[in-house]
Amino acid sequence: MANFFKDNDDLRFYFERGFDWPALAEMVEQRYRLPDGFASADEATEFYREVVEMVGEFVAEEIAPVAADIDRQGLTCEDGEVRFPKELDRIFKKIKGLDIHGMCLPRELGGLNCPAALYMICTELFARADVSVCAHHGFHGGMAMAMLFYSLSEGSTEVDRDKGTVISTRFADAIAEIVAGEAWGSMDLTEAGAGSDLAALRAKGELDADGTWRVTGEKIFITSGHAKYHFVLARTEARGAGDDPMAGLGGLSLFLVPAYEGKGANKKWIARVERIEEKLGHHGSATVAITFDRAPGHLVGARGEGFKQMLLLMNNARVGVGFESIGLSEAALRMAQAYAAERPSMGKTIDQHEMIADYLDTMENEIQGLRALAMYASFHEEMAQRSTIAARYYAEAGSDEKARFEAEARRHKAKARRVTPLLKYLASEKAVEHARLNIQIHGGVGYTKEYGAEKLLRDAMVMPIYEGTSQIQALMAMKDALMGVMKNPQGFVARAAQARWRSVSARDPLERGVARLQTQLNGATQHLMQRTAADKLKALGGKPITAWPDQFLRNWDPKRDFAYAMLHAERLTQLMADVVIAERLWTQARQFPERRPVLERWLERAEPRARFLHEQITTTGGRLLAKLRATQDAAQAEAG
Amino acid sequence: MANFFKDNDDLRFYFERGFDWPALAEMVEQRYRLPDGFASADEATEFYREVVEMVGEFVAEEIAPVAADIDRQGLTCEDGEVRFPKELDRIFKKIKGLDIHGMCLPRELGGLNCPAALYMICTELFARADVSVCAHHGFHGGMAMAMLFYSLSEGSTEVDRDKGTVISTRFADAIAEIVAGEAWGSMDLTEAGAGSDLAALRAKGELDADGTWRVTGEKIFITSGHAKYHFVLARTEARGAGDDPMAGLGGLSLFLVPAYEGKGANKKWIARVERIEEKLGHHGSATVAITFDRAPGHLVGARGEGFKQMLLLMNNARVGVGFESIGLSEAALRMAQAYAAERPSMGKTIDQHEMIADYLDTMENEIQGLRALAMYASFHEEMAQRSTIAARYYAEAGSDEKARFEAEARRHKAKARRVTPLLKYLASEKAVEHARLNIQIHGGVGYTKEYGAEKLLRDAMVMPIYEGTSQIQALMAMKDALMGVMKNPQGFVARAAQARWRSVSARDPLERGVARLQTQLNGATQHLMQRTAADKLKALGGKPITAWPDQFLRNWDPKRDFAYAMLHAERLTQLMADVVIAERLWTQARQFPERRPVLERWLERAEPRARFLHEQITTTGGRLLAKLRATQDAAQAEAG
Repeated sequence: MANFFKDNDDLRFYFERGFDWPALAEMVEQRYRLPDGFASADEATEFYREVVEMVGEFVAEEIAPVAADIDRQGLTCEDGEVRFPKELDRIFKKIKGLDIHGMCLPRELGGLNCPAALYMICTELFARADVSVCAHHGFHGGMAMAMLFYSLSEGSTEVDRDKGTVISTRFADAIAEIVAGEAWGSMDLTEAGAGSDLAALRAKGELDADGTWRVTGEKIFITSGHAKYHFVLARTEARGAGDDPMAGLGGLSLFLVPAYEGKGANKKWIARVERIEEKLGHHGSATVAITFDRAPGHLVGARGEGFKQMLLLMNNARVGVGFESIGLSEAALRMAQAYAAERPSMGKTIDQHEMIADYLDTMENEIQGLRALAMYASFHEEMAQRSTIAARYYAEAGSDEKARFEAEARRHKAKARRVTPLLKYLASEKAVEHARLNIQIHGGVGYTKEYGAEKLLRDAMVMPIYEGTSQIQALMAMKDALMGVMKNPQGFVARAAQARWRSVSARDPLERGVARLQTQLNGATQHLMQRTAADKLKALGGKPITAWPDQFLRNWDPKRDFAYAMLHAERLTQLMADVVIAERLWTQARQFPERRPVLERWLERAEPRARFLHEQITTTGGRLLAKLRATQDAAQAEAG
Repeated sequence: MANFFKDNDDLRFYFERGFDWPALAEMVEQRYRLPDGFASADEATEFYREVVEMVGEFVAEEIAPVAADIDRQGLTCEDGEVRFPKELDRIFKKIKGLDIHGMCLPRELGGLNCPAALYMICTELFARADVSVCAHHGFHGGMAMAMLFYSLSEGSTEVDRDKGTVISTRFADAIAEIVAGEAWGSMDLTEAGAGSDLAALRAKGELDADGTWRVTGEKIFITSGHAKYHFVLARTEARGAGDDPMAGLGGLSLFLVPAYEGKGANKKWIARVERIEEKLGHHGSATVAITFDRAPGHLVGARGEGFKQMLLLMNNARVGVGFESIGLSEAALRMAQAYAAERPSMGKTIDQHEMIADYLDTMENEIQGLRALAMYASFHEEMAQRSTIAARYYAEAGSDEKARFEAEARRHKAKARRVTPLLKYLASEKAVEHARLNIQIHGGVGYTKEYGAEKLLRDAMVMPIYEGTSQIQALMAMKDALMGVMKNPQGFVARAAQARWRSVSARDPLERGVARLQTQLNGATQHLMQRTAADKLKALGGKPITAWPDQFLRNWDPKRDFAYAMLHAERLTQLMADVVIAERLWTQARQFPERRPVLERWLERAEPRARFLHEQITTTGGRLLAKLRATQDAAQAEAG
């Protein structure tokens, strides 16, 4: 039987050695005190492995073989009802039978109580079979988890502190429906004219005299938006005054809006599905435009804090796209390897041709690097969330335990926040690149529908766009990095000095290589700081270094002061991702000698690239910025 | 009226200043002695401009607006007949009315007697409107030109030396049919199992007792292969003995095979169109699988020299794909610019966001660089061909004029040969990259069918595959470069020293920049030479340098000796393309000060890239080659 987990050595490494399942299991199983829970980390991990093996077989046997059919048939929308091709219906019936919609939900809510990390790995497995099935599947369990999470976050869930269980939760009915495979959810953010720029949203939430919230607006590009349960971001307060284009973010609230009621013959739509988008790929996943006209909704969290609420789950979603992208890359690699091993040309199979061998080796190594990054991001994101909940719900107020959980939450959160945009950025960009290389390796047949190579590219193209474009990831990663330096310049200087020292003095050549990469990154970061802050830093000259952050962080003109760093944000992000992956692989290599070659191969390609990025960041861009500034000055002069 | 020529400043530069039309016109117009010809370069150039303006308007007004419809409807194949959607039929009827199928054919054959360079520019214009229409259009006039060219080449054309005209030519009837828009041709090379590897072809040509050649075989991926006139490459002689996988190239011959006879209701197929391929894009261009079963054919050129014949026109075809790719890039750039100038985000239109501005600036500058390269390649390729024909047909045997034409032919041929694979490689790769960036700039709507961004990517993906993959271009360019050095090592050393000197001493900073690029390339080339020839060079130690080429070029094991250079062939090709474009732009900048910023922008990005490529070439790859060698040794040990 084909099995996308068992056939993957690198993925199995994370079950056999390379991942801290016991730490997660301890959190998930509430230190093994749950009534129907596991007694030990071994028991729990064994179960996780059974789940992932089951999913690995299911996706390989049931989804992958019909992925081309699903792609070909696609979905239709008639009178507001989205119709699935029969293969897709069959798949989701089987998924229901597997009981995995509640994979990460507590047992008392009908779930399997697995870690989110396991869910993420399953996301990779699904995506290797078909990303559109993966996406639609994700809007089942993923949205049920969101409902529980939001309820915990707003305080509408009651728990049994001793047993570590949930007694009641606000959206229990909806969760139960999803776990039973009877419904799913969606995240309704984007509108025409407001994609990356959520401050421009126009959908609105109004509070009726009877206390009912009513949501009105048109949302577009909603994945699986023929859902029953919609998390809708809508404006409830007036926009902030002034010119700041971000002021609009302040007046948004988050609602859970049912789009229909009843079921079967009694199903009655409250919202209206206007159309499904005709997309380049992802043909098994409905991307929907939907209209709400005074639809009753449940306010989630505090009024006016919708953007903040949305951010709470955004990291999770981005980690998810990271795994999804890796699954697609893995599919592209496998397809390319299989074809190249069979296709003869000029006296040998083409996998023995140097350039093709180089492509295949690069793809394989990049996937290994990305997976190391993804597992790390997933671990810390989950530990942060579970520690936060544990501190609030499962530890005594004022106890040492609570303080410990809170400290853990902060520590994990900082790590997750640093790497998540890097993962989303690099994995999605690489999915496109790997899909493209796979076509090229196939030559002429890669351009036809015959082998499925072209489908992977069509499916990959959305990865760098949805859940925050690559450009948005780069801006976030760059700003976080520069702010991090500003908040603790001494720390940065010390780390940079250490890296420089290790790059020449470390005994292990791999450690020196990692340190050389870090040194390139530190140099580029420092350059961006200096360019960004040239004027401001001058003003700080006479002040003590501890006063810098405060002085520095005030009075920015976002249109101008960050321009240089914004121009190079993507390059800095690439460099950071290269470094963070090298650090992950180095951590692995120290523990597991068989991982040394993975890092060796990574460094071989990353080192020249790091110098290239460093040089671009430090020597180019002045001309373009001067041109932009002139254009903007001219526009301002004209306007004013 | 929209006009894809008039709206393009960079393209108009080549009409107003930047291109040697008089040199071409003198050749094309046979030094202004043609009976119905132009009297001067000015008259001729004025006419060329009228033609290109007419085509610029036609493609913008008649093709671009229906490109999405053609893409959506595509072609069908029923019982061996390919059906066009009505928009495509309409377009080709109008093209017929414009009389441009014979654009480059002599007037006495019904043509307009324009230079091929004009035809190439029109290719760019067509491609900007729709590449699939461009491709099908190309298999009309392009194939008529091929017929005349092959006939001249084999000596079956009679000319009037005094008047400079053609009196008769072997394929006159077919040419007349094509010029009249009644038929077209195709190049039938690829077979299942033989794409880049033509030595593996299995189609055969057999000579009947009555002297008729009969062609049998199955060809696939034949663009516009529902043609009447097929140039078919087929085996007529046994494969060479021994292990050399290239030996198979020796026994091939080229045939012109009519696929049907009669027309309208009397049309009767001789060959059989089996199917049209379902492709990712290019939906207005039929890609056909066709079977010949003892179809009568005309042997073109000498028996057994089919591969050589094919090579004669390959450069032309590759230059054509270069222009086609540039047209597609131009379409992507224009679409991205228009969208970015309108789309607001965070308080300004996104073309004012630094990263997007950088993408747009890069695309624009890359297109300018590629166009400079393409115009250069086109000029020298055409001058080489016309000089060759002039020397043979229009100059007295033994005359000084003949010797002069022959010298010119050699000079132009060497230049064309150097740059053609660079153009085919870089333009096609950039078409993919630019189409991808255009989607990314569009964000979510780029992934839908709404704006047409995704169509450009689908159309672009075949560019790096057809007419020789990027990998084949890279191998050819690398081998030519290394062989060039070996044939004249003194010349290489001298040029390298000059470039190093200019890189520090030239007065103009742009000249220094170009010389720095050249120095990176020379260093990388030298490194590849040394690695490639390490052992052989040692053996040459005691011999005079003039004996090196002969000694060096013997006794190669192609599987091993070239491995290092083959691994880095694509990187060397990128570096060479960067350098050649910089050289072209420098030539322009010296004459026309307004072109200096084009080179400045090119150098800004090319210099860090050149150092990056140099570093990759000189420091990486050893590990992978050792692994490949071990695999191959193991396979050999097992086999032997």
